[in-house]
Amino acid sequence: MDKLQRSERIAILTKIFADSPGKLFSLGNFTEMFKAAKSTISEDIDIIQKALEGFGLGTIRSVPGVSGGVFFVPSIGKERVYEILNSLCSELSKKERILPGGYLYMQDIIYDPYVVFNVGRIFAQEFIERKIDYVVTVETKGIPLAFATANNLNTPLVIVRRNSEATDGPSVNINYVSGSSRKLQTMVLSLKALKRKSRLLFIDDFMKGGGTARGIIELAKEFECEVAGIGVLIATAEPAKKLVDSYFSLLTLNRVDEENSVIDIRNGLC
Amino acid sequence: MDKLQRSERIAILTKIFADSPGKLFSLGNFTEMFKAAKSTISEDIDIIQKALEGFGLGTIRSVPGVSGGVFFVPSIGKERVYEILNSLCSELSKKERILPGGYLYMQDIIYDPYVVFNVGRIFAQEFIERKIDYVVTVETKGIPLAFATANNLNTPLVIVRRNSEATDGPSVNINYVSGSSRKLQTMVLSLKALKRKSRLLFIDDFMKGGGTARGIIELAKEFECEVAGIGVLIATAEPAKKLVDSYFSLLTLNRVDEENSVIDIRNGLC
Repeated sequence: MDKLQRSERIAILTKIFADSPGKLFSLGNFTEMFKAAKSTISEDIDIIQKALEGFGLGTIRSVPGVSGGVFFVPSIGKERVYEILNSLCSELSKKERILPGGYLYMQDIIYDPYVVFNVGRIFAQEFIERKIDYVVTVETKGIPLAFATANNLNTPLVIVRRNSEATDGPSVNINYVSGSSRKLQTMVLSLKALKRKSRLLFIDDFMKGGGTARGIIELAKEFECEVAGIGVLIATAEPAKKLVDSYFSLLTLNRVDEENSVIDIRNGLC
Repeated sequence: MDKLQRSERIAILTKIFADSPGKLFSLGNFTEMFKAAKSTISEDIDIIQKALEGFGLGTIRSVPGVSGGVFFVPSIGKERVYEILNSLCSELSKKERILPGGYLYMQDIIYDPYVVFNVGRIFAQEFIERKIDYVVTVETKGIPLAFATANNLNTPLVIVRRNSEATDGPSVNINYVSGSSRKLQTMVLSLKALKRKSRLLFIDDFMKGGGTARGIIELAKEFECEVAGIGVLIATAEPAKKLVDSYFSLLTLNRVDEENSVIDIRNGLC
């Protein structure tokens, strides 16, 4: 292959970084790939860093030493976060979303890759300093959001099941009481799923009473792990007191008024 | 903001394309963003296209006309596909993965964002010409793979459930017989989940008898939709005759020999 121009190398490097947030690349990877000097690659990376930072799209950090290298840290600007949350609010307020029983239909939103990646970036940005080892969710509706968050934090995803399966192997089962319906529920997680003494980030699509998050904290204890963060897309305004003390929610659902076809949902970060 | 250099614009454009495969951007978006002439942006995009193509990372296609623009089509080179599948085979052959009953523990693999995105790219590349409207999966273990595929094809993801939930709204339920265990199973999908006359791609982590895929074809009919493709990460060699005629599988599981601790799994594309 011919030697590439700077702008061509920059396109390729940026694509590689964007595809693997948090993944450490040694400069040697790139000098070989491009048949270019280390100093040339360093300059390329400086340009990428400056450009992405300028547009609030993330930055490149370096780790010194022999086993060091560079990695991409995604980010998302404050204005862009507000734009995303406001557009979610207006989409979620459409009255045709009201289901019998006052539930809100939102599967088209929480499974939409474009929305989900943006929300994943917001969660990742919020929790990146907490040294998360795993992103954890409970099946099913929070899985895409949790997966996108795990991708942006460069951690594995762990999915807690409602029933045990042969393909889990030996597992830990716990029972807990749902915060809103007071129903007894079960959570199951394979014993192989978590390294002991890990730090977990729990991500879910929706929080009402906080029972599921509480259950995850209990489950984590059985693995000698700690829940170092809780992020949910939507939290209900009522009950104001949840079963967990601290959580980060992007939207607040004040009320679904079935009779008058009104959904009152707000940006939760204002 | 100062006017940017070409290499800075290229870093930003590449990041934007990489984040949103298949999403159409008008050149006007970019001329405004960079305060640059259309011809300048076109040249930038040509450079990105050439560079990414040269490294088998994808290409940029354009749509002519007033409502036209450019969009990124991800791809993954043949060599890279083989590299990924071979490394998956050697990882999945480790004897400590054998579970009681001859099952294979693979949650760490199928929930790993790095693996999952690579596999999603392979699926997307295989099915991109089939005009897929939705990527569909059945909960739970195939969800990350299906989500990554949907992201790469720029389609919504649809998750079929095992039980109906209040948050689905009115739904279609079907019963089907599992291909391997001959057990009666249920599938549920919200009536709002699919537009009629759509083309679906079914993605799952594992196929034995093909009963689940068969069930999805039946379910699709209730929505007047067509299953235009089936992709699975692993298909078992036995039974050779599945309940569906045509599917694309990346790995073939020949045998899990619990007694002698041997897992025989092969690259299915050779």
